[in-house]
Amino acid sequence: MKIIKPAINVTADHAVVWQDKRLFLLDQRVLPDTEQFIELHTAEETAAAIAEMVVRGAPAIGVTAAYGVVLAAREAFDKSGSEWKQAIEPLLQILEQARPTAVNLSWAIDKMRSYIKALDSKTPEAFLTEKAIVIHQEDIAANRAIGDYGASLIEQDSGIITHCNAGALATGGYGTALGVVRSVHKQGKLKQVFADETRPWLQGARLTAWELVRDNIPVILLADGAAASRMAAGGVDWVVVGSDRIAGNGDVANKIGTFHLILAAKYHGINVMVAAPTSTVDMSLASGNDIPIEERDPQELLACGNKRIAAEGVPAWNPVFDVTPASLVDAIVTEKGIVLEPDAEKMQKHMA
Amino acid sequence: MKIIKPAINVTADHAVVWQDKRLFLLDQRVLPDTEQFIELHTAEETAAAIAEMVVRGAPAIGVTAAYGVVLAAREAFDKSGSEWKQAIEPLLQILEQARPTAVNLSWAIDKMRSYIKALDSKTPEAFLTEKAIVIHQEDIAANRAIGDYGASLIEQDSGIITHCNAGALATGGYGTALGVVRSVHKQGKLKQVFADETRPWLQGARLTAWELVRDNIPVILLADGAAASRMAAGGVDWVVVGSDRIAGNGDVANKIGTFHLILAAKYHGINVMVAAPTSTVDMSLASGNDIPIEERDPQELLACGNKRIAAEGVPAWNPVFDVTPASLVDAIVTEKGIVLEPDAEKMQKHMA
Repeated sequence: MKIIKPAINVTADHAVVWQDKRLFLLDQRVLPDTEQFIELHTAEETAAAIAEMVVRGAPAIGVTAAYGVVLAAREAFDKSGSEWKQAIEPLLQILEQARPTAVNLSWAIDKMRSYIKALDSKTPEAFLTEKAIVIHQEDIAANRAIGDYGASLIEQDSGIITHCNAGALATGGYGTALGVVRSVHKQGKLKQVFADETRPWLQGARLTAWELVRDNIPVILLADGAAASRMAAGGVDWVVVGSDRIAGNGDVANKIGTFHLILAAKYHGINVMVAAPTSTVDMSLASGNDIPIEERDPQELLACGNKRIAAEGVPAWNPVFDVTPASLVDAIVTEKGIVLEPDAEKMQKHMA
Repeated sequence: MKIIKPAINVTADHAVVWQDKRLFLLDQRVLPDTEQFIELHTAEETAAAIAEMVVRGAPAIGVTAAYGVVLAAREAFDKSGSEWKQAIEPLLQILEQARPTAVNLSWAIDKMRSYIKALDSKTPEAFLTEKAIVIHQEDIAANRAIGDYGASLIEQDSGIITHCNAGALATGGYGTALGVVRSVHKQGKLKQVFADETRPWLQGARLTAWELVRDNIPVILLADGAAASRMAAGGVDWVVVGSDRIAGNGDVANKIGTFHLILAAKYHGINVMVAAPTSTVDMSLASGNDIPIEERDPQELLACGNKRIAAEGVPAWNPVFDVTPASLVDAIVTEKGIVLEPDAEKMQKHMA
């Protein structure tokens, strides 16, 4: 990995950049303080960058992994020549294991694997690069479609509350939940966005705030625990969140705290929208109980920066995703359209 | 205010210390990193210490205010001699306005005011000191009674989740919610405590963890947003929290995030106990809508220590209490006993 100081004017659409056959990630660990890119040279480096959350957000992880496969193909070809298809498989597996919850990771790798399988060229790099770029471009297009479908559900002068960052930074560009926010804003229907700060990694305070302030979209930050009070006080019409994996019955895995936010919404009669591309839907899982939930280092909770904030000697539990039952979700919005009151049958039909 | 390095072995019972006619507060702004006391010489200093959260927690604020009235009487008598009763009133008003939500503050000052009114001595200090010590001792006794009443509701091998710090540090000693925890632990019925970290001020991570680790009570820290996942995963039988003000109908104001926690508990069929002395009950308010909710400096949310964590330019909303409707509370426990499924009629009867 190599740190690159940007020569460009960085925007949230630069989460994953492929340029001159090189892969760059905007380093989300250090935003909003520092704008720097990390250049990745190998599949192993790409897997490490995903694990360390240089890049995060299910669709952005998928796009990054697709480019990671290109790097893997380059490595495999350089090392093994015409035997590259055998040599690449262990590298794909390293990529696949970088993080467990976002299904977009294995979705993208499986897609690239199918191209590899079909490929008879002895020089795979150019062809796979083209395919990775298509995956990236299709993600952006999907987000724009999600934005428009989602916005169609939202009325004039709406207040929207979101959790974590499901923005351009979390995707190929434009964003899923924040794609809906952008489309609502563009249509002149947005009154106010409220952003949960999203402990422990503070994606809301660091990333969503950074994205929306730059786009002049009105955003107010809240402690995660203040969302219910905000709803009780009025001005919130919709919860709009992204997802890391949606099970076949419509259960939704998303950033830890989403379940709390949605329970508060249901208590207050507020609508709940989950915005995600179909690459996030995992029809192989019957319910959210089957979604693997990543637990990360308790240090994320015990310290802030390098400073310990918790009392010495206390252990912490740090699951970074939770699962919200489909019964609490009013709409799942993908690039294919809208699933109202999702259940297994409707998801099946939507994905067919 | 004067910073005093402790010569004693500091415990959570030292939140408010009156010794040799001097008032000391354990500085909760800097726990758990630093153990230091702040010595207060005047009512103004006491009000400032309450406002700045050197001391916090509704009952501890009440006890501190009672001693603050002693300091006010000393000042008033030194300055105005026999006219001290006129001179003290503005000082009492400064104390009363230190923080708005915890009713224990005005409760304690009103109680001391009634002693002042009845007093014909020309040297008030000794008498008022005695009364403040009684308020302090009665708070500890109330907490022990609350602990026992609360524990009587809790079964063998129970898991308890708590929010903020309603411990010895938040009271005259022993604690309200953590008083219940201590009694359950003493009776050998406690399996595990889970403590919400409690953004933004991190009372859970800093104070509750500090108290419980020192008492060898098993505690695991959670992000506020992880409590619903913890409940879904099992091992949680009760939510036990304190309160800053309970309205006449049983609505409960407590630290921001409590409402979220209780909504998650009700969804998962988990019992909810609010533990607080009767000095926290404000029968003059018909419902929680009438409870004044303090909003504090957004910096509490935007920064961690001296380091800004949120993106530049984003505003924040920082209400530090929320109100949970009585309908979501299974039991309110005071030193007078237990109110199951609280409502206006039952609260009236309990407080009569």
